[in-house]
Amino acid sequence: MSDRPVLQFWHEFASTYSYIAAMRVESAAAAHDVEIAWRPFLLGPIFGAQGLTDSPFNVFADKGRYMWRDMDRLCADYGLPFRKPSAFPRNGLLAARVAMVGMRDGWGPAYVRSVYTANFVEDHDITDAGVLAPMIMAAGGDPETAFRDAASDATKTALRRQTDEAQAKGVFGAPSFITADGELFWGHDRLDQALAWARKNHDQGK
Amino acid sequence: MSDRPVLQFWHEFASTYSYIAAMRVESAAAAHDVEIAWRPFLLGPIFGAQGLTDSPFNVFADKGRYMWRDMDRLCADYGLPFRKPSAFPRNGLLAARVAMVGMRDGWGPAYVRSVYTANFVEDHDITDAGVLAPMIMAAGGDPETAFRDAASDATKTALRRQTDEAQAKGVFGAPSFITADGELFWGHDRLDQALAWARKNHDQGK
Repeated sequence: MSDRPVLQFWHEFASTYSYIAAMRVESAAAAHDVEIAWRPFLLGPIFGAQGLTDSPFNVFADKGRYMWRDMDRLCADYGLPFRKPSAFPRNGLLAARVAMVGMRDGWGPAYVRSVYTANFVEDHDITDAGVLAPMIMAAGGDPETAFRDAASDATKTALRRQTDEAQAKGVFGAPSFITADGELFWGHDRLDQALAWARKNHDQGK
Repeated sequence: MSDRPVLQFWHEFASTYSYIAAMRVESAAAAHDVEIAWRPFLLGPIFGAQGLTDSPFNVFADKGRYMWRDMDRLCADYGLPFRKPSAFPRNGLLAARVAMVGMRDGWGPAYVRSVYTANFVEDHDITDAGVLAPMIMAAGGDPETAFRDAASDATKTALRRQTDEAQAKGVFGAPSFITADGELFWGHDRLDQALAWARKNHDQGK
């Protein structure tokens, strides 16, 4: 077992700020010597429980306009490419089921980054298996196996349970980070705070 | 005229994160050699236009629970005292009208910081003129004049126009910061980004 603290990284494929977090999380974690546990989940059921049937960025127009401008500025600051997708939010269900398989089989993180790049840089339709297949392969997976396992009851149930777990832990947006002692941090801009908390909590427990 | 860039600081007295921003804004601005233009306003009409009749932190329970925990952590990090008030949100209408007078007469910022401390540290009822009076005096104002002017049509109209201006500029939450070239930044955690933008824009315009 690793002696490094583990930080859970909860991400949803439709979430713009999850894109920034996904691209930054590994290097930031390395700087704190923290291990990242990737946790794909779905925001739809959680927003639904709040009475929202669409992204808050679509429901609240001013907030949405701000978010797109904010993404432009932040990505410029971080040196990340970004293009506002022609469809938002894109349903991340298939991509997330495949991600569950990828996390099990070791090619998850690279695949997840590719899906975010497809959605928020290349403006590709991530609900399309044909779009996902080459990304699975590039990350080291076998698309045929991945889609078969993604469609299994076991994977569907696992993703549903993971989303339930997020909700039970108080997650209400993405990205979110949860430390081993249960501290929740919301937003890509809390990544460093979450990593510092994970590191401090771990060192104090020694 | 000052040659320093000016950053507008839009704040609402019921807003927890505005408290953090109000306490940090002057020292952060000094570090960037930026001047702060304090802009009290009311979120109520803006939330109302979004269909919200209460604070989003009350409407969305998980988000509310997170916010209170986040405030505890952030204030500890910043060395700011903080106590969850027994009433939330407290109506900031009277306090904001008085703030308009204070900004006109030069005792505004000190008064504003006192009101935030009363609400979020001392758990005092900031809707009560008796609570505000000593804070006006401590900041260098005359309470009798302040309350008389705060109740005038001119002040009421000025605050309403300021709130309309916030909305017209895309403000949807507090605190918000707006640079001279119209860039909007939302959240106390964007204060440094906003100051850096204000400074850079100013220096490029020379």
